[in-house]
Amino acid sequence: MNKSDTVSIKSTEIAGKKSLHVIKIGGNVIDNSENLYHFLKDFETLDGYKILVHGGGKVATQIAGDLGIEAKLVDGRRITDIETLKVVTMVYGGLINKNIVAQLQRFGNNAIGLTGADGNFIKAKKRPVKTIDYGFVGDIDENSINPGNISKLMEAGFTPVFCAITHDGEGQLLNTNADTIASALAVNLASLYDTTLIYCFEKKGVLQDIDDEDSLIREINPEHYEELKKERIIHSGMLPKLDNAFTAIACGVKAVIIGKSDDLGNIKNNKPFGTRLSKTT
Amino acid sequence: MNKSDTVSIKSTEIAGKKSLHVIKIGGNVIDNSENLYHFLKDFETLDGYKILVHGGGKVATQIAGDLGIEAKLVDGRRITDIETLKVVTMVYGGLINKNIVAQLQRFGNNAIGLTGADGNFIKAKKRPVKTIDYGFVGDIDENSINPGNISKLMEAGFTPVFCAITHDGEGQLLNTNADTIASALAVNLASLYDTTLIYCFEKKGVLQDIDDEDSLIREINPEHYEELKKERIIHSGMLPKLDNAFTAIACGVKAVIIGKSDDLGNIKNNKPFGTRLSKTT
Repeated sequence: MNKSDTVSIKSTEIAGKKSLHVIKIGGNVIDNSENLYHFLKDFETLDGYKILVHGGGKVATQIAGDLGIEAKLVDGRRITDIETLKVVTMVYGGLINKNIVAQLQRFGNNAIGLTGADGNFIKAKKRPVKTIDYGFVGDIDENSINPGNISKLMEAGFTPVFCAITHDGEGQLLNTNADTIASALAVNLASLYDTTLIYCFEKKGVLQDIDDEDSLIREINPEHYEELKKERIIHSGMLPKLDNAFTAIACGVKAVIIGKSDDLGNIKNNKPFGTRLSKTT
Repeated sequence: MNKSDTVSIKSTEIAGKKSLHVIKIGGNVIDNSENLYHFLKDFETLDGYKILVHGGGKVATQIAGDLGIEAKLVDGRRITDIETLKVVTMVYGGLINKNIVAQLQRFGNNAIGLTGADGNFIKAKKRPVKTIDYGFVGDIDENSINPGNISKLMEAGFTPVFCAITHDGEGQLLNTNADTIASALAVNLASLYDTTLIYCFEKKGVLQDIDDEDSLIREINPEHYEELKKERIIHSGMLPKLDNAFTAIACGVKAVIIGKSDDLGNIKNNKPFGTRLSKTT
């Protein structure tokens, strides 16, 4: 082995794994065509591997209404009956997913739109009936994601765009929370890629004062998170989001960023974006 | 080079290209869950690479009706207005496509459901308005298909399942005839694979007597086709189908088979299946 061989091996070791961004968008991006356009344009410019995960939005509710299918709630929890499953399969898997793919292709990104059934990428289990029958809702566990299969697709040059539909491996499609899918993808791909998970939501990130967008907290590590909880700066709705984020980080995800879709371009421009959660700040 | 090397190289040369079946199914398979189940089970057992192409079926008409969208016809030709495009994107690209994929996964086939927008696999041009404005209908030309991209997906271990939706590369989804998509895929992949194109339809194949399923013509070559046309054994609706089939064969497709989906399993069992059109019989 000569000197240059040693250097090249060292540099590979330092360079480590390739970078991957898993980005989740929800109704506030999907329902606004201008927001969606700008987000997808910025998404396209991100370096490295990337995966987009999207949920539903108002259009699903609207089409369900037009078809005379009423939202079913039991004890305030949404139920996915067979008719609702049909609507979400059509709207998430067809209308929203394929329009996002067509836009990304327009911007030069080789996107491919998916449910968890495609490529057997995400297998879920129909939620067991205890006190409530949630219908065709799929829960993800540690064996749900097939990282090798997803990696093969990305290595072949395609950008996966997942909607919030999974399958049970027995021919049944299931409705699965998009946040959960994004987190599970990031955790399962963290062994293969240097993975950052990004949740786009309606605020600029985690705020000291919920009414003041200028009070953005730039970085939070686990110790800082415990303090913020004690001081009740973070409470109610943000708690499960951040708990899940720190679980993903404990499972190998490098960082979780919570931010506004408008600001995604900041990553490319080396400007701060949202609230960055990681082991160390 | 020793003797065994020579033998192995020769055998590769003799074996030539890998085999590919491009199979198109329509409403008579899609609308009948039992037919669809048996077809997909037989599809899974086919050796070599395979691509499934499907059209719509009654469910699209039914959902359009439920949404209050009436079929628009001008001079007897169907028009795809923006509302109809939404319905076909939902029903073909979501409901039908993803349920087929979930079934194929159940049978152990690593299917992945696609429109032409996904992976930029099939680009079409919105049909120009001459006397009739067909709306969002996409026409395919010789540059529409990206065989290298499709090949990458298949070589990565996935089975493409295409619905009858394409895109214009500028962000617009388009409605394209499924027969045309199947034929264009077969023609464009014929340089890479030993390609057979199969159209499943409601009859056992091309019949001498349309009312007698036992009068199946097993094989037709171009000369025989000319005779059958002269004798008016083949006429009206079958003419464009067979003309297109012989065009595909002239463009490199090894054979086109027209048959009933129930009989697809015959291929695996080395039994005759449908009417086989090829250069030589």
